[in-house]
Amino acid sequence: MQRQKIGILGATGMVGQRFIQLLENHPWFEIVWLAASDRSSGKPYGEAVKWKLDTAIPARIAGMPVSPATPEGAPRIIFAALDADIAREMEPKFAAAGCAVISNSSAFRMQADVPLVIPEVNADHLALLEEQSWRKQSGGYIVTNPNCSAIGLVLALKPLEERFGIESIFVTTMQAISGAGYPGVASLDILGNVVPYIKNEEEKLQEETLRLLGSLKGKLVEPLGASISAHCNRVAVEDGHTESVSVKLRKKASREELLAAWREFAPLRGQDLPTAPAQPVEFVAAEDRPQPRLDRMRGNGMASTVGRLRPCSLFDWKFTVLSHNTIRGAAGAALLNAELLVKLGKLEPATVTV
Amino acid sequence: MQRQKIGILGATGMVGQRFIQLLENHPWFEIVWLAASDRSSGKPYGEAVKWKLDTAIPARIAGMPVSPATPEGAPRIIFAALDADIAREMEPKFAAAGCAVISNSSAFRMQADVPLVIPEVNADHLALLEEQSWRKQSGGYIVTNPNCSAIGLVLALKPLEERFGIESIFVTTMQAISGAGYPGVASLDILGNVVPYIKNEEEKLQEETLRLLGSLKGKLVEPLGASISAHCNRVAVEDGHTESVSVKLRKKASREELLAAWREFAPLRGQDLPTAPAQPVEFVAAEDRPQPRLDRMRGNGMASTVGRLRPCSLFDWKFTVLSHNTIRGAAGAALLNAELLVKLGKLEPATVTV
Amino acid sequence: MQRQKIGILGATGMVGQRFIQLLENHPWFEIVWLAASDRSSGKPYGEAVKWKLDTAIPARIAGMPVSPATPEGAPRIIFAALDADIAREMEPKFAAAGCAVISNSSAFRMQADVPLVIPEVNADHLALLEEQSWRKQSGGYIVTNPNCSAIGLVLALKPLEERFGIESIFVTTMQAISGAGYPGVASLDILGNVVPYIKNEEEKLQEETLRLLGSLKGKLVEPLGASISAHCNRVAVEDGHTESVSVKLRKKASREELLAAWREFAPLRGQDLPTAPAQPVEFVAAEDRPQPRLDRMRGNGMASTVGRLRPCSLFDWKFTVLSHNTIRGAAGAALLNAELLVKLGKLEPATVTV
Amino acid sequence: MQRQKIGILGATGMVGQRFIQLLENHPWFEIVWLAASDRSSGKPYGEAVKWKLDTAIPARIAGMPVSPATPEGAPRIIFAALDADIAREMEPKFAAAGCAVISNSSAFRMQADVPLVIPEVNADHLALLEEQSWRKQSGGYIVTNPNCSAIGLVLALKPLEERFGIESIFVTTMQAISGAGYPGVASLDILGNVVPYIKNEEEKLQEETLRLLGSLKGKLVEPLGASISAHCNRVAVEDGHTESVSVKLRKKASREELLAAWREFAPLRGQDLPTAPAQPVEFVAAEDRPQPRLDRMRGNGMASTVGRLRPCSLFDWKFTVLSHNTIRGAAGAALLNAELLVKLGKLEPATVTV
Repeated sequence: MQRQKIGILGATGMVGQRFIQLLENHPWFEIVWLAASDRSSGKPYGEAVKWKLDTAIPARIAGMPVSPATPEGAPRIIFAALDADIAREMEPKFAAAGCAVISNSSAFRMQADVPLVIPEVNADHLALLEEQSWRKQSGGYIVTNPNCSAIGLVLALKPLEERFGIESIFVTTMQAISGAGYPGVASLDILGNVVPYIKNEEEKLQEETLRLLGSLKGKLVEPLGASISAHCNRVAVEDGHTESVSVKLRKKASREELLAAWREFAPLRGQDLPTAPAQPVEFVAAEDRPQPRLDRMRGNGMASTVGRLRPCSLFDWKFTVLSHNTIRGAAGAALLNAELLVKLGKLEPATVTV
Repeated sequence: MQRQKIGILGATGMVGQRFIQLLENHPWFEIVWLAASDRSSGKPYGEAVKWKLDTAIPARIAGMPVSPATPEGAPRIIFAALDADIAREMEPKFAAAGCAVISNSSAFRMQADVPLVIPEVNADHLALLEEQSWRKQSGGYIVTNPNCSAIGLVLALKPLEERFGIESIFVTTMQAISGAGYPGVASLDILGNVVPYIKNEEEKLQEETLRLLGSLKGKLVEPLGASISAHCNRVAVEDGHTESVSVKLRKKASREELLAAWREFAPLRGQDLPTAPAQPVEFVAAEDRPQPRLDRMRGNGMASTVGRLRPCSLFDWKFTVLSHNTIRGAAGAALLNAELLVKLGKLEPATVTV
Repeated sequence: MQRQKIGILGATGMVGQRFIQLLENHPWFEIVWLAASDRSSGKPYGEAVKWKLDTAIPARIAGMPVSPATPEGAPRIIFAALDADIAREMEPKFAAAGCAVISNSSAFRMQADVPLVIPEVNADHLALLEEQSWRKQSGGYIVTNPNCSAIGLVLALKPLEERFGIESIFVTTMQAISGAGYPGVASLDILGNVVPYIKNEEEKLQEETLRLLGSLKGKLVEPLGASISAHCNRVAVEDGHTESVSVKLRKKASREELLAAWREFAPLRGQDLPTAPAQPVEFVAAEDRPQPRLDRMRGNGMASTVGRLRPCSLFDWKFTVLSHNTIRGAAGAALLNAELLVKLGKLEPATVTV
Repeated sequence: MQRQKIGILGATGMVGQRFIQLLENHPWFEIVWLAASDRSSGKPYGEAVKWKLDTAIPARIAGMPVSPATPEGAPRIIFAALDADIAREMEPKFAAAGCAVISNSSAFRMQADVPLVIPEVNADHLALLEEQSWRKQSGGYIVTNPNCSAIGLVLALKPLEERFGIESIFVTTMQAISGAGYPGVASLDILGNVVPYIKNEEEKLQEETLRLLGSLKGKLVEPLGASISAHCNRVAVEDGHTESVSVKLRKKASREELLAAWREFAPLRGQDLPTAPAQPVEFVAAEDRPQPRLDRMRGNGMASTVGRLRPCSLFDWKFTVLSHNTIRGAAGAALLNAELLVKLGKLEPATVTV
């Protein structure tokens, strides 16, 4: 199988770096184009980036020149890791030029004809992309993955929703600093501290969760008819968002039934997507887990780890969820979306005509 | 006014150290006796203690010998900062010997005839102490203050309960390491990490909150008839417990009514208790507060700081509460209890007869 | 005694905030003017500042309008907390306009006619200010205090230099994040990490140390004829610079002689400067001290704490030095300089004529 | 090639866990025996251990029973990860019983007939093991690797010593908490703090460095004739010791000569030891590197990373060294020693006869 050429928009940021790390040695995709802000354009990537991961920049990538962030010369598959403001302006240009834009940005997640997708949860929502005007005109489209705080939660909730129905959700997040990019959170704000506020995060977490768990009705997603309330906090953790969750189910379920729902949740089994974890939701039995330092890399950073399942005196059950915010919560999420699109025949070179 | 002689049980631990720090220069009390484990007994306090506060050990205290932890030779007022297991055995001996034991331990908090008290919240529960058999026999008694995670929350809830009634409470804590004593939490467990579990903490937080907000009916406290569910987490913060709270009220209330309830909450006004903060509940308007590093010392560490008041999509309101866990949440709480007992005439030397 | 009116240049930064905190209730000085960048100008200080200290903004200050950073309308005594680039341009304007500029910036520290002073160390260097052209023309002048990494070290070295002479100095610093201002160090760079580089810091530490320990020869400071090599590192500490030091003395000295030199070092005794610590160099005997969290507030943050004195297998002695980098290392240093200038009659209102 | 059976003494500690992690899928060795304290004996390893690594316990290992720590039933190759006190008593028993004890403990490092070895540095010192009485009697022996603070430093110094000679060494360490084991450093001691003391560490670092760089003269190691002074500090880093180093060379050398010495240092090239890094000393050019979070995993945690090379105003050169303290500094060091012993024919099953 020949690898498909891909490009990365926003390649020098934290999520862009994760894309490069995860795409090194990827069996299906090959990075051929890197774009970043005008400031970086023209420089070798290795000079333009402040690399903050603990693996080396692949040598081939370090020497690759940073391209201007315009569709000219870009490949047809674009992973986009842009801030929402810039994404809002730039992603449509690439879609209009015929590119498949696999976006990690929040800019278009709630737009009616843009799929917001977690492959294990709502792959069928991808059908929406055929409704996009770009798709009809140039073959291009935008597909998005959720916010880093939503994705681990939704993975944990989906098996419960399927089997028991969900009526209400309480969630308090303790989010890692890498979620804010670089330089992001000032050390004076977070060292030995908690910041009980992340701009727009509670709104995104609430909205996206219900959309992801919602149903595709014709050309629209009908959000899940459940109530959700989120408290979002920043804590002094490098990677890995921890969430305290209480849920009220529509149908009572035993502890063993919940564990079975998580254990048996494997909607991508047999599809052989390279980035898909064997077990999307891992339950950890120890009473003091999951913990970000110890559990974020389960499933190569793509699993959602659940623990501390116990009855809730207000709702039915409470538990803790953890997922890696820049792998499963960002670059890995987009990459898995792209792999699914390949399987669905939506990333065939032939379908795209610039 | 002559200062009353007091002793400290468990003087070398983290809470014991706070007692010493807070009692230095106290206008009403004077430390004359310090007790700790057998290992420390006989040594000068300055040698026995691993002092972990950022103010110096008062010179007079450093030279004071550590006494054995027995009532012989102890003064009649005892501040107790013992682990629950030891407290369960030791505090009754001091009460039986005629001591007023002002305890920070959880050992007897839920015992029917032992007052669990926050002076601003349920001072009337102190009447229970007259029911104690020790009181009747020797004049001694035990009075307790709540768990460090309960006290800030209950201070914030009390004004709402008084004016609007409380039906349901969701609370997720992010607790400081000093709450676990010394050596307490291993650095390998908490640096760059969150531990979503603190043994027995959720149970204590839930039970104590309802008891503190409950009503004294004859010789019993009837807990508040509300539902409460707690998630307790440990985070990499030295001092100050942060809590994300959602509440459902019995009577709808506007934002301004909530703010007024907190602002006007001043049940100890006019009593001139030295350790009482002028404003027990401080509201901070900035969108990203309260934060432990910046707000824990409000009211000299005795205030409960509230912020981020906003509507809750599941209950009525949500907000963040912060309080200093070893001042308001431990030594300062006990000290304020003692000051109230002085006002009530329950710490008069004459009432105690060994 | 009437308090003298002072202004603060760069009032919204981290050092500016410390000036405000330290000057609240100062017996000699009263803040009447606050200036910051154009962006802040005109706003009430409480709105313009991102206050990062754990004490409240004094109410009077919060309401004070931020003035433009020009000498017009400024009082004659100016505490300057500006970045070096801005200071280089702005401080001379204030000096030319007749102001006594008490500067914390590095911009003019090494200029021949600008005194670089620690009151306990080289108060006589203040004579240099009479050489400044501004002084001759308008009465204005610039006086500076050293870099935050130099000041604790020099306080510890001065008593040794006086009694035994110093030939060589090795110093490795572990510096707190607050030294970089706000937002300063990104949390992704320092959480669970060490950064072995602080721009220009080693050069400043080396140069300033020798100048501070140098001698005033006529109109010039002759630096100390010693060798010094510095390694500067940033660590995950909020406040307090820790330094590992080895020294070679010109005259051999015993442990007890070193301890006596530090203990008896009290050059400001009897001067009653409000900010001067009773003991400028405190020795702490415990084998694992000084530590930033426990010792930075000695002498109200104005002491240099020394510990771990032991023989050095390469030089004569090695020890650890700690001092608070934004109090003794910045705002407190400037304030103590100003107090000394008052004593010397160099801050009399009459001497300044705009 | 059949894998040789090995056992781990002290398997539940932090270094024991690293042994298990590094030995999973090792081509030459297979874990067949795990021993720990009596408390753990008999339990399945997965229950006995508090696993603190971010990879899962291999399933086969989790189910393996923990054996008593006695030579009966133990395989002939033993990796020992014991505290020094216990090692002093226990390792000789295993050596006497015919085991090759590859020890990470400090207990016998300075004993004349026990090799203290870094394969890239002083492989010839292994000859000493033939002098051990155990070797002569039972075939068993003890081989040790250095302290975690010495190993990265010595790797960086060895190429300089070879080419230019070393006269003097100054080193200040900033050591990670994992070096103290679990629970090890209390979080209250290190969060937002520096502890300028690690018991016996400076002595070990000084002594071991000179022995490792020393020469085998007959049956004795003659330590390097250089002076060394160490300052050891603990900082809030999980893994990775950072060291600020100044060296005085016997023969002047240029920057380019030093870089070449490090670049060309490859004494194990061609030996194909599975754990040996391709480049034992990596130089990183960025001005603010190496940093523990970013560089500790170079060479799979087995490289020593050097950066910030610059002239020293007291000695010749100064630079920063970083190495992973529980991989290259402990379990990985022992494992590489074992691999070298296999190459040398000292771990052939036939040579050992119980």
